[in-house]
Amino acid sequence: MPRAPEIRIVGVTGIPEVTPGTRLDALVVDALAKNELALQAGDVVVLTSKVVSKSENRLIRLRDLKPSPLALSFARNDVRDARTVEAVLSQARRVVRMDRGLLLTETHHGFVCAHTGVDGSNVPGKNVVALLPEDPDNSARRLRLGLKRKTGVNVGVIISDTFGRPWREGLTNVAIGVAGLRPLRDYRGERDPHGRLLKATVIAAADELASAAELVMGKLDRVPLALIRGYKYRPGRGSAAELVRPAARDHFR
Amino acid sequence: MPRAPEIRIVGVTGIPEVTPGTRLDALVVDALAKNELALQAGDVVVLTSKVVSKSENRLIRLRDLKPSPLALSFARNDVRDARTVEAVLSQARRVVRMDRGLLLTETHHGFVCAHTGVDGSNVPGKNVVALLPEDPDNSARRLRLGLKRKTGVNVGVIISDTFGRPWREGLTNVAIGVAGLRPLRDYRGERDPHGRLLKATVIAAADELASAAELVMGKLDRVPLALIRGYKYRPGRGSAAELVRPAARDHFR
Repeated sequence: MPRAPEIRIVGVTGIPEVTPGTRLDALVVDALAKNELALQAGDVVVLTSKVVSKSENRLIRLRDLKPSPLALSFARNDVRDARTVEAVLSQARRVVRMDRGLLLTETHHGFVCAHTGVDGSNVPGKNVVALLPEDPDNSARRLRLGLKRKTGVNVGVIISDTFGRPWREGLTNVAIGVAGLRPLRDYRGERDPHGRLLKATVIAAADELASAAELVMGKLDRVPLALIRGYKYRPGRGSAAELVRPAARDHFR
Repeated sequence: MPRAPEIRIVGVTGIPEVTPGTRLDALVVDALAKNELALQAGDVVVLTSKVVSKSENRLIRLRDLKPSPLALSFARNDVRDARTVEAVLSQARRVVRMDRGLLLTETHHGFVCAHTGVDGSNVPGKNVVALLPEDPDNSARRLRLGLKRKTGVNVGVIISDTFGRPWREGLTNVAIGVAGLRPLRDYRGERDPHGRLLKATVIAAADELASAAELVMGKLDRVPLALIRGYKYRPGRGSAAELVRPAARDHFR
């Protein structure tokens, strides 16, 4: 019998508050060491986008924003802070739905998500919100290179965020930045054990890795970093852009 | 420092072909034993819906179906087998999108997915397709009770299937049947480390567990069963119905 495939997912604790300029490669290596862990080739490091945003100073003070009439109108109907709505709209490339409390937008990266990913949780300061990283693929790539430099090993890096979805309740973690691994696992053209050709099966492995990491992260425990060991993946440049469905092929935009 | 939370996900190999009437509790216990594993209290067992469908004889022969004019018309435009389209429509409660090759429907359980979950992969026989289990929550519950009877321990059970989603490429595994754990992790009313109230955060933990399990399952390796150990969850009756967004609150139906 083939040996059972096994994956370990470790939530990395003891990470200090991240501030603009914090070096993420050093942060990850130090936090792993405190947890008596060291990177191994083929590991996947998952880091929340919030930490990346803070390190890249993607924070804005709400008092610096002047709400547009559109922001004021939506905020009035939904009892929200108009400046937060202004921050959301300022980051959007397109509004997908603006109705019954939902403000669903497309980010400049192409992600469709609530509030353009603008979020105030786990940010210090009552009137400060975090924006998504400007280029999360690049953030992932820089972290991957920094980890390679510091430890000598090649790992995959995923920057994760928490998105909702239609039809199903609850949020799940997805990948918004990827480096060092192919985010999609393509089975098309392969055959199942009965010899039948698989026609439509492409798995969003990077999103599943981000979801798996969320299981050890929680939202309250200061665990913005997870180490995934044992997942077999094809190394490659990778980019979260591969996970964005082109609008022309999308039935819900 | 608190001990790092760690989850193990083991793909259980050596599972024989499942046929109508196969006892799933015995199947799981025997397969775990062959992998030198035994259930522990708090484990989560994830089983693919395909295996459950086979054991419950949710298989149909395409030659027994007579395509309706609607099925013939859609099949003609999309170069598909009209009998497969008939099987898909026969299982649907509602058609959500029928356009440009996409046949997205609502199942009688309330799940919105491609082809009402009707699928021919990993099914023996060229012209046989599998339907989703009639009541996957009940399938999960029966498996959970059977495992309790055979091993004495309480575990969570998830029946998983592979669904697409709008806006993002690739499929991910989600939970379509749940027993023994609450599928949603609700953070609303709790405070982040900065004391800020979390307003909108409900995590679809059962879907994340299903996605995590997919990472060791693959599509070609006869690994329809995963054991997840170390995930802290609140036991409870649980139901995948909690993961279905009511149509009235859904912006995309």
